[in-house]
Amino acid sequence: MKPNSAIPSTAPRRIPSLRGAGDPFSYVREELELVEQNLAQAIRSREQTLTDIAAHLILGGGKRVRPVVTLLAFLAFDGKRTQDIVDIATSIELIHTATLLHDDILDGAETRRGKESAFKKFGLKSTLVTGDFLFIKAFEFAGKFDETVVQWTADACALLTEGEILQGIFNRNKAVTVDDYIEIVRRKTASLFQTGAKVGAYLAGANTALIEAADCYGLNMGIAFQIIDDVLDVVGHLELLGKPTGMDLRDGNPSLPIILSLNTGDAAVCEVFKQARPSEGEISTALEAIKAGPAIRQAKALSQQYAENALRSLRKFPPSLHRNGLKTLVQLIIDRDF
Amino acid sequence: MKPNSAIPSTAPRRIPSLRGAGDPFSYVREELELVEQNLAQAIRSREQTLTDIAAHLILGGGKRVRPVVTLLAFLAFDGKRTQDIVDIATSIELIHTATLLHDDILDGAETRRGKESAFKKFGLKSTLVTGDFLFIKAFEFAGKFDETVVQWTADACALLTEGEILQGIFNRNKAVTVDDYIEIVRRKTASLFQTGAKVGAYLAGANTALIEAADCYGLNMGIAFQIIDDVLDVVGHLELLGKPTGMDLRDGNPSLPIILSLNTGDAAVCEVFKQARPSEGEISTALEAIKAGPAIRQAKALSQQYAENALRSLRKFPPSLHRNGLKTLVQLIIDRDF
Repeated sequence: MKPNSAIPSTAPRRIPSLRGAGDPFSYVREELELVEQNLAQAIRSREQTLTDIAAHLILGGGKRVRPVVTLLAFLAFDGKRTQDIVDIATSIELIHTATLLHDDILDGAETRRGKESAFKKFGLKSTLVTGDFLFIKAFEFAGKFDETVVQWTADACALLTEGEILQGIFNRNKAVTVDDYIEIVRRKTASLFQTGAKVGAYLAGANTALIEAADCYGLNMGIAFQIIDDVLDVVGHLELLGKPTGMDLRDGNPSLPIILSLNTGDAAVCEVFKQARPSEGEISTALEAIKAGPAIRQAKALSQQYAENALRSLRKFPPSLHRNGLKTLVQLIIDRDF
Repeated sequence: MKPNSAIPSTAPRRIPSLRGAGDPFSYVREELELVEQNLAQAIRSREQTLTDIAAHLILGGGKRVRPVVTLLAFLAFDGKRTQDIVDIATSIELIHTATLLHDDILDGAETRRGKESAFKKFGLKSTLVTGDFLFIKAFEFAGKFDETVVQWTADACALLTEGEILQGIFNRNKAVTVDDYIEIVRRKTASLFQTGAKVGAYLAGANTALIEAADCYGLNMGIAFQIIDDVLDVVGHLELLGKPTGMDLRDGNPSLPIILSLNTGDAAVCEVFKQARPSEGEISTALEAIKAGPAIRQAKALSQQYAENALRSLRKFPPSLHRNGLKTLVQLIIDRDF
């Protein structure tokens, strides 16, 4: 049976604002185009609903940071078989998207990337099933590789689910520590960056020490990435973020700025974080309290530390344009405002 | 990191009642034991919640019909590398379990296999994530095989999700036909039997015509299996089923007895099927109406037709004890009362 569903027209994707010679996206433009083609192909289904929901998210403004890391790591080690790494980059973006769909259900999220979340627009049932569908498609792309790649990819996915559970344990739980946070983020966010970079190096034929360096780069830049996400949830702007600020307080998610504010004994933040349904007024007050305290500065400093770890790993890479791209990417991630 | 969670103690599994020389389960006892070991291993996670929820369902009374079909098809074609087919059988049972967890969320099911559903016991969030976790573990087992096996397995999973969507379209929708029903069942139930049998034949080294015969066996016995499930939802007994009867009417699922009753213009069934929240009294009345009409007899006759198709495919298999096992299995499925 041949899937024949139409693909809905796509919204323009947002790309980090850096342009010109230093733009890491420019080093993998052609490969990214192939990833886009793969993604468009992957979401075709004999059930239009699945295609529509997948397209809503996949063609609706992802930054494609995970594919870029994967592609750049591969090319930094002079990988030759482009289609292989394009398929892995596709798989990783599909896994990421599947988890976003399921996360929106778990959080009851109403908006995502500047529009209604799939959960809000299409309902729980179809969104849940579409998440499953995208997981499956991801494995179709990753499953053709050797056991090492399959195992690493499956391990990353298992970690994602284990991160989700750990985050749930610390939901609205003021006992959460910075160490707990880092463990959640290692699992929930960094694992896909880490796996993308590691598989990129592996498929390019890099030796064990260099694969380890790529792994270390992905892990650290992934943690830096998530910390900035958390910071933006406090200090960001609706128009740029595509979603309101204060989501972590609303959902009771233990973000780094919240944890750091709890550590300083901030009563307003503590009260809102513990509460099942804080009012918008209470959230605003708590956001102001976080901004007024040292939490944002401390969080940025920690993000900078992880960024520096990532850059340190890069020094083991052979010099190349693509290594430069990975370096610039870290800076973009730290400096971004969406 | 080494997962170290404890596995909760297991409930005894129910096995079809046929014992002795003709019991198809007895032909694959050792292989099934290896599948059980795989399953117990697969559900270990560094998060005890994932292990607990997975164990609740996986170690809680599955009939293991899909693994048995897979193992028997492999052995019927004289397959030698037992561990390979054990891994595929494990993968298929994990996929099945993942979909049960997600289905219970979609249906809001309160009971499953004679006890509280995971959804009821552990809540939506953890159950959803555990379903994802089991999908991932399934692909860990299937991903080590060649592209053909990976593709067939992924296709079966994609079909499951597409079946779920199609079933949703016909939820409480009296326009549903028997053809629609067969298409839903092909996707939602038969695809895993079909893929198990097909991969079994393929990994045993059977030729294309014989792989096709195995595929045809799995497809037809899978449809027969689901029809009997639907019949039991009307005429079965709570203690044997492990869940109340009338679930399809309660959930608005287009089961075959319901569709056949709608076809005869049965007003009581039509009224309850369309209704968002039928009362228990209305469900009882509709169940009695279905039993009083020709629907159960017609459904059993259709199931018998699919069973005969399955048996016809078996004639192409070389004679063997395992072929006999597949034959007996069809009969067990038709005659079962749970």
